Amino acid sequence: MRIDVAYTGVCGTDLHIFHGHMDNRVAAPQVIGHEMSGVVAAVGPEVSGWAAGDPVTVMPLDWCGDCPACTTGHSHICHRLSFIGIDAPGSMRQSWVVDARTLVAVPEAVSLRDAALVEPTAVAVHDVRRAEVAAGERVLVVGGGPVGLLIAVVARHAGAEVLVAEVDRGRRELAQRLGLRVVDPVGEDLAAVVESWTEGAGVPVAFEVSGAQAGVESAVAALGVRGRLCLVAIHPTPREVNLHRFFWRELTLVGARLYERPDFERAVALIADGTIPTADLVTRVEPLARAQEAFEALENGAGEMKILIDCGARG
Amino acid sequence: MRIDVAYTGVCGTDLHIFHGHMDNRVAAPQVIGHEMSGVVAAVGPEVSGWAAGDPVTVMPLDWCGDCPACTTGHSHICHRLSFIGIDAPGSMRQSWVVDARTLVAVPEAVSLRDAALVEPTAVAVHDVRRAEVAAGERVLVVGGGPVGLLIAVVARHAGAEVLVAEVDRGRRELAQRLGLRVVDPVGEDLAAVVESWTEGAGVPVAFEVSGAQAGVESAVAALGVRGRLCLVAIHPTPREVNLHRFFWRELTLVGARLYERPDFERAVALIADGTIPTADLVTRVEPLARAQEAFEALENGAGEMKILIDCGARG
Repeated sequence: MRIDVAYTGVCGTDLHIFHGHMDNRVAAPQVIGHEMSGVVAAVGPEVSGWAAGDPVTVMPLDWCGDCPACTTGHSHICHRLSFIGIDAPGSMRQSWVVDARTLVAVPEAVSLRDAALVEPTAVAVHDVRRAEVAAGERVLVVGGGPVGLLIAVVARHAGAEVLVAEVDRGRRELAQRLGLRVVDPVGEDLAAVVESWTEGAGVPVAFEVSGAQAGVESAVAALGVRGRLCLVAIHPTPREVNLHRFFWRELTLVGARLYERPDFERAVALIADGTIPTADLVTRVEPLARAQEAFEALENGAGEMKILIDCGARG
Repeated sequence: MRIDVAYTGVCGTDLHIFHGHMDNRVAAPQVIGHEMSGVVAAVGPEVSGWAAGDPVTVMPLDWCGDCPACTTGHSHICHRLSFIGIDAPGSMRQSWVVDARTLVAVPEAVSLRDAALVEPTAVAVHDVRRAEVAAGERVLVVGGGPVGLLIAVVARHAGAEVLVAEVDRGRRELAQRLGLRVVDPVGEDLAAVVESWTEGAGVPVAFEVSGAQAGVESAVAALGVRGRLCLVAIHPTPREVNLHRFFWRELTLVGARLYERPDFERAVALIADGTIPTADLVTRVEPLARAQEAFEALENGAGEMKILIDCGARG
């Protein structure tokens, strides 16, 4: 399938690649990008169900089909997973060829600009599902970047009350504009805020989305008895974890990675029905020729949240 | 209720107290001991359902009833839990007064000697339940002391295939006599053994019962996709945990502490039906007057597993 790419979002992982921290997986020159929207330009010879002009997004996973993960229904964490946009060429281009099985339909009512947020929203949907967030539960999200705020919004939509802990003032202000409760874990006493908010019980659910040692500690300390910590962020090195607290309060830690197709489809639906505040989350759109500037803006720019690269195609 | 104590087992926690490591909870002089059997000697004035001569064991938990744990059905991890035998006087004595609600009936068919193993067996039952061990699953138990072997036996009874990793040769030999598969994590390559045993998939369930940093690492490394690590051992200081692996394979860590009444009742049943190899697990019985020697034997003795103190009472 050939896709004319409309927009590609810049992910924190893309920034790691930009810095050369993932050179073991990405050899330059390489086109990256995995949060995208576009329209079908040409349909492969043995493909049915798609037509030129169809608005689409891509679930950028290529699994082997016969490893222990794939054969037990967990192909998204395939032992030999190729992540398209990292391990294989990505979508920061005008024309992109992908396997038909990666396509996910985008309804006409969803703009192509909004559709570029389906992939990070699918991450949030998967995380909230892994944490088994229930209506009425109080949820702490540690880290208020794009994925943290998407988790907060998806959890709130599931009926949770959400508190976002974020060190950056601009990000806290955006979270507040989205109607979320916020706390500055550096300037305020997060533990005391949680203690007061939960009347001493601790939260039933926390999400670690900061990637920092301090974030892990804050999240573990905030949990009440039988609390669940959903681990979303990537921690490249081992972290010190208060295992005694896991024992003492019978806590659960749940790792969450990527998404499965139902998460992707649910993400499309949450964008289509207006649950996801796409206009607030996208803080900048740059043309493909200014991709370099887009990466630099994400790195330097206070107040930036999601930056999209405009790759040109329109529905 | 006044109980004539028959036997009291010596637990690893008792050894910690013996060493003075828990002086913040146990001020000498203090009678300790919480793995016990005995017979009812006198029934309290407002107690019904018990009669003098009834064989019993005690679930040594005293909870507050109104903290966030108690009011959500988790009184065994009460915020203000008093553990009888640590925070309150224990059973290494001839005559012991306890609240009637702590009593658990022991069937006539179970010897008082075997009944002293109900408490540690209840720990194992709780752990296997928390880990949701299913029939046919391969289970790694890291640490082959009394609780590790009880977990192995209870998991096997649930239909699991069990591998016990234990550094002590005497303990490995005992595990082998119980029909368990064993591995020496120091002299052998545990990761390679697991890889071969599971044909590259990793185990779905591991129990960390060693209390060591290396045990945590081995258990995490052994797990396959969506694997569950049940944390049983006490880790007094934070441990380095490979959180990236939790993310990458979507692992779950489940803390498990103590037991609930159904675990205690299940433990009685597993001893009554012969599932628990009590005769093999009890390696020494010492009279109360020789408690000091019993502690020293547990500390020094290669090949010791469960040591009981004979407190005198008989059915």
